[in-house]
Amino acid sequence: MGERQNEMLVVQKYGGSSVATPEKIKNVASRIKNRLEAKETGDGFKMAVVVSAMGKTTDGLIALAKEVSPAPPAREMDMLLATGEQVSAALLAMALGNLGVAAISRNAFQLGIETSGDHSNARIQDIDLSLLHRSFENNSVVVITGFQGVTPEGDLTTLGRGGSDTSAVAVAAKAVSTGMEAVCEIYSDVPGIFTCDPNKVPGARKLDYITYKEMLELASLGAKVLHMRSVELARKYGVTLYCASTFSEERGTYVVKELPEWLESPVVTGVTVARNQMKFVVKRIPGDGDVLAGIFHALALAGVNLDMISTAGDDISFLTFTAMDGHAEAVVKAVSDCMNENGLTGWDVEPGIPVTKVSAVGDGMNAATGVAGRVFSALRSRKIKVLGISTSDINISVLVDDERADETVAALAEEFELTAKNS
Amino acid sequence: MGERQNEMLVVQKYGGSSVATPEKIKNVASRIKNRLEAKETGDGFKMAVVVSAMGKTTDGLIALAKEVSPAPPAREMDMLLATGEQVSAALLAMALGNLGVAAISRNAFQLGIETSGDHSNARIQDIDLSLLHRSFENNSVVVITGFQGVTPEGDLTTLGRGGSDTSAVAVAAKAVSTGMEAVCEIYSDVPGIFTCDPNKVPGARKLDYITYKEMLELASLGAKVLHMRSVELARKYGVTLYCASTFSEERGTYVVKELPEWLESPVVTGVTVARNQMKFVVKRIPGDGDVLAGIFHALALAGVNLDMISTAGDDISFLTFTAMDGHAEAVVKAVSDCMNENGLTGWDVEPGIPVTKVSAVGDGMNAATGVAGRVFSALRSRKIKVLGISTSDINISVLVDDERADETVAALAEEFELTAKNS
Repeated sequence: MGERQNEMLVVQKYGGSSVATPEKIKNVASRIKNRLEAKETGDGFKMAVVVSAMGKTTDGLIALAKEVSPAPPAREMDMLLATGEQVSAALLAMALGNLGVAAISRNAFQLGIETSGDHSNARIQDIDLSLLHRSFENNSVVVITGFQGVTPEGDLTTLGRGGSDTSAVAVAAKAVSTGMEAVCEIYSDVPGIFTCDPNKVPGARKLDYITYKEMLELASLGAKVLHMRSVELARKYGVTLYCASTFSEERGTYVVKELPEWLESPVVTGVTVARNQMKFVVKRIPGDGDVLAGIFHALALAGVNLDMISTAGDDISFLTFTAMDGHAEAVVKAVSDCMNENGLTGWDVEPGIPVTKVSAVGDGMNAATGVAGRVFSALRSRKIKVLGISTSDINISVLVDDERADETVAALAEEFELTAKNS
Repeated sequence: MGERQNEMLVVQKYGGSSVATPEKIKNVASRIKNRLEAKETGDGFKMAVVVSAMGKTTDGLIALAKEVSPAPPAREMDMLLATGEQVSAALLAMALGNLGVAAISRNAFQLGIETSGDHSNARIQDIDLSLLHRSFENNSVVVITGFQGVTPEGDLTTLGRGGSDTSAVAVAAKAVSTGMEAVCEIYSDVPGIFTCDPNKVPGARKLDYITYKEMLELASLGAKVLHMRSVELARKYGVTLYCASTFSEERGTYVVKELPEWLESPVVTGVTVARNQMKFVVKRIPGDGDVLAGIFHALALAGVNLDMISTAGDDISFLTFTAMDGHAEAVVKAVSDCMNENGLTGWDVEPGIPVTKVSAVGDGMNAATGVAGRVFSALRSRKIKVLGISTSDINISVLVDDERADETVAALAEEFELTAKNS
């Protein structure tokens, strides 16, 4: 239909707390209007806005469902939950209309947001972009219901936790795949991605830029801001993400493939913390590898996810790993059973001890040398004992006592200059 | 797909008060289960259940809309309101599943309930019955969102007040039009159609049967039970309606084309009351008809709906009519302007006086003689003054003073044996 290939699509996403009340919906409408009026890029600028359900709507609907059935079928649950986004989308379109902005709301049926049939956890398989383009014919803004899709058979689905982020990125990604330029702006009550948790580390800096890869490693820092699936999708299609606050004009954080050239890559971009970990040590395992494989198999069957795995020793091995708190009994039982089934003696498994994992992440680590040394020195100078360590190309993680976790973050933040100088 | 033509489709409809809470939804699910288990007609029995939004949901959504926009566009309003029925349909399907009844909810998209594009007052144009049949493949019950449809362009619409009744009858009518047998059962908090308003007339009898034609004339008696559009649709397609209470096992009322042969047609089936009427008299109008036409035109322009129109006199005419309360000024002004524009003098228009219209309705009136005489005698014996009268083939209406309205109904109920003897 003669669409221009170099048109720009701006996809904005507003989460549940941003549209929790009629007042907040009107605020979002004003922001959208300002954004439209500030556009100086000419006429090749279209705006799609993805919304979540208002505030606690989804929780309320789940509670209703539990009242009529202790185990509601996932298919009906999706039918129920999908209404939440339709309500907020219609209200936002109304609020925009009231400000003189021509807007129309569209649900998953109306945009052909096709997903797999995995109810409550569906994956977007396609979006019929021609339906989106048609929606723009008489409208400046198309308001899209996030979180939901429709199967080829016409059943409604939902995308799981953080699904509205995924909806927004998917729309932008689909546009990119057809040759359009697209950015995706994620608005929430958090103003961006920080170097460390700002609630724990005074002076934690908000980042202007972070790479997809760093973002994925720094999951815990971004968890309140961005759903990880949406970051993966953005990386895959090269969609620039921008995370900022709905409630201020403060500049947010861009999530990009590579930092702008003028920006020197820091060695460490951020520090993240994973609490509630347990560290286990299994001693004196025969070193032929079969028993080790048997232990991993038994632990997988017991539903235990392992992290920070390391081995030591030669003929007789030591195995160290961590798992989320709450699996101590299962781990000891699985390992013991495995040892006994193999008729082994002399082995030992220590019951888990609680630890915290602190990770420093940075694309710049790749090119830097001595990062592990800097980490150890920083901790040793504060007499923090390292109970374990693992590294990848852009990540170095240490295990420390729970009560030393905050100090560990502070030490790494200081060492790698992650806090604002004057705060 | 080899569907049997003589299959029976039972369409049930439950209104907002019947599904107002999770408890009530569970009650409806139990009723549906009982109905399914009581079926003795073999396997040719399918059940579609149309639901309204829960209790005051629609009012709540309208209030939300008003908070974001003083005049929300009808298109977005429909998008918003359509969520109400989707919630109740999903919850009812869950509640049925919990009782072991295989059920699935379907919205307007999923059943191809195609309507005109008149948002907030759309007309159903077609239903894709193959989608309904397919929904029955693994399910005993298909729960359908009432009140809503979808345009050929994919926009959501709503059917206006009482729209869920219309949805239910339309599904049954479509089935009938394809050669299936179908009945439509409308459940609400009212146990059926009564001869008179049971809140006003002690002993008012519930009817076992009433004809479509009588039902349409007795609109005010059925207003809480049945939307008139749905009665028209049922009449057009010959769908038998059954109205009963959701909250009891009491037998309800069948609305049919003709009473069963074994049932003697009563002269009068019911008596209905229209309050808040005003009676106007225009005196000394030239009798050539042009001025009369001018008056009707002027009143139509002023937005006044006329009822009970009668004229008297020959060369110089008297015009009497009623209109809903609240139009007195508009009527006097419209008539006066019309007279003055025609350069007339000597005319007079009396400001309206409040009256109540009481109507007796019955298919049997057609065949009976002396009905008007019986009405007048009954009222005269109670010294009730008749301020106006009009008749049609199945209806006789009288105007009386507001304060005599209840007595008038009682007099007619007695005369035509509309109350139970022993109450």
